[in-house]
Amino acid sequence: MTLVGTAMLIPTAVALYYKETKAVLSLLVCAVPMIIIGLLVIKLTPKEDNTVLRMRDGFFIVAAAWIAMSALGGLPFVISGSIPNFFDAFFETASGFTTTGSTILTDIEAMPKGMLFWRSFTHWLGGMGVLVFLLILNPLSDKNTGEGMHLLRAESPGIKASKLVPRMKDSAKILYLIYIALTVLEFVLLIAGRMPVFDAICLSFGTAGTGGFGVLNDSVASYSPYCQWVITVFMLLFAVNFNVYFLLLIRKFRAALKNEELITFALIVGVSVVLISLNIARFCGGVEPTVRTAAFQVASIISTTGFSTADFDTWPQLSRTILVALMFCGACAGSTGGGAKVIRILISFKAARRSIYKTMHPNSVRIIHVDGERIDDATVSAVSAYMLVYFIITAAAILLVSLDGMSFETNFSAVAACLNNIGPGLGAVGPVCNYGAFSWLSKLVLTLSMLIGRLEVYPILLLFTPSVWRKIHR
Amino acid sequence: MTLVGTAMLIPTAVALYYKETKAVLSLLVCAVPMIIIGLLVIKLTPKEDNTVLRMRDGFFIVAAAWIAMSALGGLPFVISGSIPNFFDAFFETASGFTTTGSTILTDIEAMPKGMLFWRSFTHWLGGMGVLVFLLILNPLSDKNTGEGMHLLRAESPGIKASKLVPRMKDSAKILYLIYIALTVLEFVLLIAGRMPVFDAICLSFGTAGTGGFGVLNDSVASYSPYCQWVITVFMLLFAVNFNVYFLLLIRKFRAALKNEELITFALIVGVSVVLISLNIARFCGGVEPTVRTAAFQVASIISTTGFSTADFDTWPQLSRTILVALMFCGACAGSTGGGAKVIRILISFKAARRSIYKTMHPNSVRIIHVDGERIDDATVSAVSAYMLVYFIITAAAILLVSLDGMSFETNFSAVAACLNNIGPGLGAVGPVCNYGAFSWLSKLVLTLSMLIGRLEVYPILLLFTPSVWRKIHR
Repeated sequence: MTLVGTAMLIPTAVALYYKETKAVLSLLVCAVPMIIIGLLVIKLTPKEDNTVLRMRDGFFIVAAAWIAMSALGGLPFVISGSIPNFFDAFFETASGFTTTGSTILTDIEAMPKGMLFWRSFTHWLGGMGVLVFLLILNPLSDKNTGEGMHLLRAESPGIKASKLVPRMKDSAKILYLIYIALTVLEFVLLIAGRMPVFDAICLSFGTAGTGGFGVLNDSVASYSPYCQWVITVFMLLFAVNFNVYFLLLIRKFRAALKNEELITFALIVGVSVVLISLNIARFCGGVEPTVRTAAFQVASIISTTGFSTADFDTWPQLSRTILVALMFCGACAGSTGGGAKVIRILISFKAARRSIYKTMHPNSVRIIHVDGERIDDATVSAVSAYMLVYFIITAAAILLVSLDGMSFETNFSAVAACLNNIGPGLGAVGPVCNYGAFSWLSKLVLTLSMLIGRLEVYPILLLFTPSVWRKIHR
Repeated sequence: MTLVGTAMLIPTAVALYYKETKAVLSLLVCAVPMIIIGLLVIKLTPKEDNTVLRMRDGFFIVAAAWIAMSALGGLPFVISGSIPNFFDAFFETASGFTTTGSTILTDIEAMPKGMLFWRSFTHWLGGMGVLVFLLILNPLSDKNTGEGMHLLRAESPGIKASKLVPRMKDSAKILYLIYIALTVLEFVLLIAGRMPVFDAICLSFGTAGTGGFGVLNDSVASYSPYCQWVITVFMLLFAVNFNVYFLLLIRKFRAALKNEELITFALIVGVSVVLISLNIARFCGGVEPTVRTAAFQVASIISTTGFSTADFDTWPQLSRTILVALMFCGACAGSTGGGAKVIRILISFKAARRSIYKTMHPNSVRIIHVDGERIDDATVSAVSAYMLVYFIITAAAILLVSLDGMSFETNFSAVAACLNNIGPGLGAVGPVCNYGAFSWLSKLVLTLSMLIGRLEVYPILLLFTPSVWRKIHR
């Protein structure tokens, strides 16, 4: 609460600069009580030194915190009247923190600059994980590295949260430094391309968190080709496992570039760009615009950012279907991107291949390797089960959203886009449309899907497990 | 070859009865050479008594036989001019043998009766498995029960092919007797409802194999409510594991009705009928027509038959989405129905629940039970891997079919309907439409999907495994 309140002071400063009195007041009315109440709660909570944080406690804290952040963070929108309906504001803010980038706004340019800044800033905060940031500040994490690990695991994407260096606090610091450095680099390159400073800041936030909120109604379409290429490259950079950058920093180049997940990711991007370029060539004039448009949309979808420079909903069916497939693939583990993650797709394919082989040779023993390392059966089972849970949630969400009576394509792609933290889908939620037409129930389902996707399923599901609540009650 | 040729003599007799000279000649021109060539090949093949049939041999035989059956079985359509294009005839016959029921025909009623009979007869032959029938005739299967088992396993649906009685031959006989008895019972009940004899025979074949080819352009819509109810009940009966009937026959009533898969199946059907009835109530006059229409369509889709009494493509989105979900669920294992099978869905849900539990309690050991029996980890992994392969195939097929430029809904539901052996989908392949508009490539992809679905993935995938061909070459 204190953290979100403090974070709100930055857009307040922006609103002050642009002399938006209403935005300043709405932000302050939320920020000040939140900071004070939050600090009071911290002060009044008895410090028990022997508390041990277990896995499910970590999951519970993260899930509850993210829902609270989304609800509280949306209040300035409601109070300022930018988004009068609470469910809409909750949707928009959850979309921000989870770095989804789905919007219910029709006219983005009509928003005050302070509010637009806050909207993009939530992407940047949510991208790396808000609670991981606490680890840097919290002295507790020094005493027991296991405790912070549970928070990190619940908040970071991928099949395992690996510590870069022995101390949790240092790992979190390194991650944030890489994150800040890349964000600043993108900002500088965009400014060099003569993008307005405000736009460059907001778009850098949106790219870094792989979020997708823009500041113009046509997303990124009206910026120069140079800026579009810069954003394309940075969307891909932020979709790569940050461990790769750490390995580069400590000059382990070979290990960094031989990463199997990275190679698979590059292959998927390459093949998709070629196929889509061939498929849409007749709609764009010349080779550069075709490749740029294809590369931008592929990078945007697979990194789960959701910016757009073209209305891919009007593209031929093959390209649209490739984009839907990329939605489920998602970025690399340990990046700021969402989706099922390339590593899980990789392991799933290897598990599928093994199962075909085993059917033919029932007594064979085959081991799955990634990066030359053996993946034990427990991990393979966990990945398979994760994918099953993922598909079950997708199906359940589509069923609930279908109550609204929109087309199958719209419902399917809306759920895919929210669950995988992308933003735009196809049909009525295509890149030139928005989520405003859905009922409050669908918006709630989609908001939950975003949170489920961002926190990788289990923390949110935990909130719906009766046994957990019984334990808390006791 | 001999078997398919011999089977063609029955529709030849029907065509003779209706004095359709062209149909008689086209069928005979195919049947006679096939019987002769087949018998010659059998005669000329040296009998090696020490041949051991291994798992992959069984799979290979079944896959090759089914493709050959579909190609040869389609020749009379091509020769008689009923379906002039070979790819169309291949599609239609594969659709018949795999009990899918997807058609490329626009005007079914214009077909000669002999051809219509052959079309429906392929359902009945394919429903129980053609090669299993050979086991009854083949004296080899007496010597070594293991050998026939591999054929049975490759051809029958579900996670394990259980022998009802110790000898393979007797098991196959019992299955066929139950199958014939139920088919005859349905035929008698339909005749009692004053359905024309020809229609009653064809529809009984279509229900028994859970196929879905009808003889009228509007499928089952124009028959009496009584006949529709009879077909609804029998579609569900043929979607139940035949072991249940065997248990009933030997008076183990408790074991038969406590079957967990059966209970799950009944629950899914019940809930779906109630939800769809509520959802479509305003389109049908009165309670009985509403429930009848809902129950018919639910039974038709979940049993993977594919008959229709209403154009469910025009229903509200919720009902349409429920039907798509039911497509992937499918019938019970050990029935004539297709789909992923209820037992796999059941185990997937249990595996998903366990994985959620394990994330919270990492050191816990939890065992999955079905029918009170422990499901070992190998089976759970196999089921998870199967579902992953299933989703990968679905995605690949949708991508290939999307080259035709049809809508996402059409492509998605066409692949779902073919892979799960149902028949009609949504959009351009809805119950009042057909598959005629697809390109030859898409028809080939969909035909392969039907075969992959009917033979449960592995036998057909085996044909695409290079190592298998290398071994054969040697």
